[in-house]
Amino acid sequence: MSALPPAEAKEIEAKEIEEGLVLAPRFDAQGLVVCITMEAATKEILMVAYMNELALDKTIETGIAHYWSRSRQSLWRKGDTSGQVQKVLSIEVDCDQDALLLRVEPGGDGKACHTGRKSCFYRRLADGPTRRLEFA
Amino acid sequence: MSALPPAEAKEIEAKEIEEGLVLAPRFDAQGLVVCITMEAATKEILMVAYMNELALDKTIETGIAHYWSRSRQSLWRKGDTSGQVQKVLSIEVDCDQDALLLRVEPGGDGKACHTGRKSCFYRRLADGPTRRLEFA
Repeated sequence: MSALPPAEAKEIEAKEIEEGLVLAPRFDAQGLVVCITMEAATKEILMVAYMNELALDKTIETGIAHYWSRSRQSLWRKGDTSGQVQKVLSIEVDCDQDALLLRVEPGGDGKACHTGRKSCFYRRLADGPTRRLEFA
Repeated sequence: MSALPPAEAKEIEAKEIEEGLVLAPRFDAQGLVVCITMEAATKEILMVAYMNELALDKTIETGIAHYWSRSRQSLWRKGDTSGQVQKVLSIEVDCDQDALLLRVEPGGDGKACHTGRKSCFYRRLADGPTRRLEFA
C-alpha cells in the first residue's frame, strides 16, 4: 500500500470534512470553535460565543447550550446564574467545520446579553464613511 | 491628575466598548475579528468569515463585503472570481466588539459557499447521542 501524494491526500481530507456525515469540528489552537446562537423562532442572532470539546459534549448530552468562557477559562452553562437557559433545537456546522450554528429557544426573560438586552447585536454602523454606531 | 485604580479603569473601558458609539473592533492576536454574514431578506446565515482592519475598511468604503482569507493570507473581495458579490446593507457589532454581523444582498447565483451551496451551513446534527450529521 503506497501513501497518497500529499496534495491528493489533502483533497480527500477536505472532501471528508465538507461532505462527510460525522461532526468533527476543527478546533483552533486554543481548542475552541466559534458558535453563533440564533433564536429559532425569529432567526435573530442572540450572541456569538465559543465551545471547546467539553462544552460541545455537554450541549449534545443535555440539549442545553454550554460554552467555554474565554475570560473565566471555564465551562459555562448559559443561564446558570441568570436563568436564561437556552434549549437547543438544532446544531448546524459549516462546510469546513470551524463554525457552529445553534438554533435555540431562550428561557428566563430571554435577555441573552449580559448588558440586559435580548441580543448582543444592539448597535449598527451609521450611514456614511465614519465609524459612528447607532443603537438598533 | 491621579490614575484610576486598575479595576475602575477596566470598568470604564468595558463601558465604552459596550455602550460607546464608535466602532472599535477588538481584533484578536492575528488581527482578525469574526464576521457572520446573513442574507438580509431571509435571515439565513450564509457564512462565517474573518475581517482584518483592511477588509473592514474596504467593506465600509465600498459597501461590498471584503474578508481576510486565513488560508491564502490575503484580502478577499467575496465574489471576485465567482460573481457572488455581497452588497452590504448593514454592519452590526456585538457588545464586546469582537464579532460583526453583516446583512447582505447576495449577487450572482447567490451560492455563497465554495461547495456550490447557498449557505455554508448545510448539515445539522442528527437526533440522538451520536455525532452523525444529516444534510439540511
